Amino acid sequence: MVSTVKRFLIGKPLKSTELGEQKLTKTKALAILSSDALSSVAYGPEQILLVLVTIGSIALWYSIPIAIGILILLTALILSYRQIIFAYSHGGGAYVVSRENLGAKPGLIAGGSLLVDYILTVAVSVSAGADAITSAFPALHDWKVAIAVVFVIFITVLNLRGITESASVLAYPVYLFVLALLILIGTGLYQIVTGAVPSDLHASIGTPVAGISLFLLLKAFTSGSSALTGVEAISNAIPNFKDPAPNNAAKTLTAMGIILAILFSGITYIAYYFGVTPSETETVVSQIASETFGRNWMYYFVQGTTALILILAANTGYSAFPLLAVNLSKDKYLPRMFNNRGNRLVYSNGILTLAVAAILLIIVFNGNTEHLIPLYAVGVFIPFTLSQTGMMLKWLKEKPTGWVSKFTVNTFGAFICFIVTMMFIITKFAQVWPVFIFLPIIVSFFYKIRKHYDTVGEQLRVSADEDVPEIEGNIIIVPVSGITRVVEHSLNYAKSLHASQIIAVYVGFDRESIITFEEKWKKLHPDVRIVTLYSYYRNIVGPLGKFVDLVSHKAEQSHYSVTVVIPQFIPKKGWHNMLHNQMSLMVREFLLHKKNVIVSTVPYRLKK
Amino acid sequence: MVSTVKRFLIGKPLKSTELGEQKLTKTKALAILSSDALSSVAYGPEQILLVLVTIGSIALWYSIPIAIGILILLTALILSYRQIIFAYSHGGGAYVVSRENLGAKPGLIAGGSLLVDYILTVAVSVSAGADAITSAFPALHDWKVAIAVVFVIFITVLNLRGITESASVLAYPVYLFVLALLILIGTGLYQIVTGAVPSDLHASIGTPVAGISLFLLLKAFTSGSSALTGVEAISNAIPNFKDPAPNNAAKTLTAMGIILAILFSGITYIAYYFGVTPSETETVVSQIASETFGRNWMYYFVQGTTALILILAANTGYSAFPLLAVNLSKDKYLPRMFNNRGNRLVYSNGILTLAVAAILLIIVFNGNTEHLIPLYAVGVFIPFTLSQTGMMLKWLKEKPTGWVSKFTVNTFGAFICFIVTMMFIITKFAQVWPVFIFLPIIVSFFYKIRKHYDTVGEQLRVSADEDVPEIEGNIIIVPVSGITRVVEHSLNYAKSLHASQIIAVYVGFDRESIITFEEKWKKLHPDVRIVTLYSYYRNIVGPLGKFVDLVSHKAEQSHYSVTVVIPQFIPKKGWHNMLHNQMSLMVREFLLHKKNVIVSTVPYRLKK
Repeated sequence: MVSTVKRFLIGKPLKSTELGEQKLTKTKALAILSSDALSSVAYGPEQILLVLVTIGSIALWYSIPIAIGILILLTALILSYRQIIFAYSHGGGAYVVSRENLGAKPGLIAGGSLLVDYILTVAVSVSAGADAITSAFPALHDWKVAIAVVFVIFITVLNLRGITESASVLAYPVYLFVLALLILIGTGLYQIVTGAVPSDLHASIGTPVAGISLFLLLKAFTSGSSALTGVEAISNAIPNFKDPAPNNAAKTLTAMGIILAILFSGITYIAYYFGVTPSETETVVSQIASETFGRNWMYYFVQGTTALILILAANTGYSAFPLLAVNLSKDKYLPRMFNNRGNRLVYSNGILTLAVAAILLIIVFNGNTEHLIPLYAVGVFIPFTLSQTGMMLKWLKEKPTGWVSKFTVNTFGAFICFIVTMMFIITKFAQVWPVFIFLPIIVSFFYKIRKHYDTVGEQLRVSADEDVPEIEGNIIIVPVSGITRVVEHSLNYAKSLHASQIIAVYVGFDRESIITFEEKWKKLHPDVRIVTLYSYYRNIVGPLGKFVDLVSHKAEQSHYSVTVVIPQFIPKKGWHNMLHNQMSLMVREFLLHKKNVIVSTVPYRLKK
Repeated sequence: MVSTVKRFLIGKPLKSTELGEQKLTKTKALAILSSDALSSVAYGPEQILLVLVTIGSIALWYSIPIAIGILILLTALILSYRQIIFAYSHGGGAYVVSRENLGAKPGLIAGGSLLVDYILTVAVSVSAGADAITSAFPALHDWKVAIAVVFVIFITVLNLRGITESASVLAYPVYLFVLALLILIGTGLYQIVTGAVPSDLHASIGTPVAGISLFLLLKAFTSGSSALTGVEAISNAIPNFKDPAPNNAAKTLTAMGIILAILFSGITYIAYYFGVTPSETETVVSQIASETFGRNWMYYFVQGTTALILILAANTGYSAFPLLAVNLSKDKYLPRMFNNRGNRLVYSNGILTLAVAAILLIIVFNGNTEHLIPLYAVGVFIPFTLSQTGMMLKWLKEKPTGWVSKFTVNTFGAFICFIVTMMFIITKFAQVWPVFIFLPIIVSFFYKIRKHYDTVGEQLRVSADEDVPEIEGNIIIVPVSGITRVVEHSLNYAKSLHASQIIAVYVGFDRESIITFEEKWKKLHPDVRIVTLYSYYRNIVGPLGKFVDLVSHKAEQSHYSVTVVIPQFIPKKGWHNMLHNQMSLMVREFLLHKKNVIVSTVPYRLKK
């Protein structure tokens, strides 16, 4: 039943040899890996204007130089990540770069903050989508959290079905969004060029503004640069590309950078030219669209695709998180299970962990995850800074041909990213402080996991010079609860093992039943030694455990092994299990975990 | 940790030999077993008046003859249950009486409806208590369900601590309630006798009333008789009494009957004499108390103890439900676990089942359980009718000395109970119909459980003429995942068992790793046969299962047993389990439940 539902939801299992067919073309990769970055265009320019408008609408012209600054930062990031893609072509992005060049701890800081970040991306973008829906249909307001959770489950199932399948579904909305914004920008520019828009709606560039400060400009720049989150996703997901993976990934990254640059600068410029002022009730994109088109179907096309891409931004997390987890797990900083491919060849454990964490966040914050945005921006700029610094050191160490220009790009990028990170911390400390709590916790957890795997590895290694001790003989203990076919069955098995000694053990709750049982047993099995134990507190595990201790203590001295043979009913129907005391289960778990004995479970299948 | 919390909540375990000290004196038994019946006085008389007042306040005098009718019914029930207590002194009440004299099905109907009834008692009385509290403190209104659940948990813990302990705590409020009502009735009667109350507040008995009908009078009688629920509890709980249990139980029952009769008739008479009309906003008891005392401390004493006993009515369910479950479980109609005494010698599984079911009811009905009351009254009168009919047949069959009067009592009782049951069904069908759905379901479930136990018993019985087949030899399969100390350890164990054959099995995900492993293995263990399996779908269980099938099929033909030896890591700390793939656990459960092999789990303790 479970497997039928599973197959219906995620499709039939794929063979390992089909992995090649599960790789992404550049077009599909661009769609699923850039949705996070591209969706930022919907709110990035607005973030800049929101800071500037605090001085007055006259200050809005500063959005142009700030946008140019952000384009420069974007260029630096794209160039730098192209270098990362070629240098670290197995994926892992900022984590691998930082670990290789700066050491384990910076690597883990980068990896840890990106992991948390992808969880935040999913929670924030899906909550935003649920918000949009409940704003449009207020009757659904009480169901906001439920709607968000359903979205997460939907995207999760889609991703569990495999990368190519989710990419095929998600490509449409992403490209439609790009198309919609390109039409919007093109129409806007045409109107500007043809003079259809009055040119006095905005203060001209260079107009002096009273009260402007470097701090404010940096703050606006920082807010705008939150549009750059998601740029690193491709460098994590290189293994998902068709061969030659690094080339394809680099080309995809460049394409994404160009699209992002066009959309970002286009929206910013038109907003400036149209004199759009950010408003509480209408987004900047909506204002531009309604001024350009009026409220016709094109307006709704822009708005609809924008809403859709805000939700699908979550999907970038689904592509990047599992692969980052694989890299951390290969280095033994995360549980090994993140390295297993599921039925559909995706890293299902990573996908499911991401989904559960995002759902928990949504529920804990009751769907109001907006104030997590700064946290999530700072969580991207920390690894940005670390990876660029790592690349600087790499070039300094290796000095390949033309390293000076590469070094310059990374130094410049590292510097701006560092400034942005500090600005986030200074200007939004009230929202970003949790980063200083959870990053150390996560990193120390990474170390703990690594330490465990290392010590286990040591303990398990077979070395030639030391032998695993031989077992000289076996003692078998058979707990019996009565004289039934199940007991006979187990006893037969015990006898067939040629053990050195077989001991049957009976635990009774009162003296009479013990005596009666002993007599019966001696008549039926005179050859098997019976030990009876009296339980004061009507529990079986306690006295049995003590007896096992006694036996195994003696056995150890003479290098004997102790095996406890436990019969277990296997009823015909699942619900029948409820009708039996499950004593064998409890005894088995207790003995395995608390005592040093081998537990042999002999199934007894009920036929009716 | 868990065991510390458990000990703190319910106290230290008791030895089986201490059972005698856990028996109840008559005084304590009266307190915990009569709380349900006595609490009915708080609403029983009101129920009669509510029906009569629909004709007009002139009809209220009919409450006197109706109360006399109910007293007669009460007397019949008490006399009849005294006879049941002596005849069936191991408890079980209506269930045992009906089963013995009428057959299994009527017995199960009686038992099933009482089980459901005790769950309803708990849910209804605790919800009523939570209602009283949230009416007094409206700020708590949103927490009604939570408060009710906390009450249930509190009573549950108290009962898990043992019968004597809960009785010691609960005796005070019950006796205080009885005291409060006796003072109220005494004072009221004194005022009537001394003429302090005008005698024209009520229509005199016999005043002709227009529009009165037999149907209406029967309906009033039926509503009033809901005060008799709980009378059967003592007959279920005889084993909890100190020796001589039947005598003590019978005396307690008589005492309860007398107190119930005095309180019921007293309240009804004073309500009649004072001309109290039932009101939406104030209970009848509250009206009487405020007329008698004014709103002084005595008034609040009556109100407070009344509220308390309404909650504690739940406790009767806690005493009777587990013992009824024991009786059903002894007859194999309920899972065996209901027959186990817990740490404190109470039947903890019964107590916990009752608590969970009541909490679910409270949550499902969102704390509004009032409309379950008729359901719960009919659920008592069905077993009343059945048990009285059973006693009739018993006397007819056995004809002991003086059987005619006993037979008459039971016939009379059976007749009235039957009428009341029919009246409930006719007048309140809208509320009692679920009884016709769930009773058949419960009874058929009882039969299913019984059938399972019977067929299991047959299958397990050891008969002299047929032998359990001998095992001629053993094949041991050791799944290996690499060359580690864990594998060496398991292999050593397998070798020590002198098996006919040992086969190591390796499941690989790609051809190269399989070849490499095979070569390594042959160098290290040239004496142990290695079988390698290639898994297309990256799962281990599937290919291993198929191989096990193959081996066990061959083994069966030559009466060989097949044992799969599975190593299991036991890490030092619990959370470390998360870091391992838990493959051994999955393989073990799969093989035990799906394949016919013995599974030997060899623990490997990690030292660090």
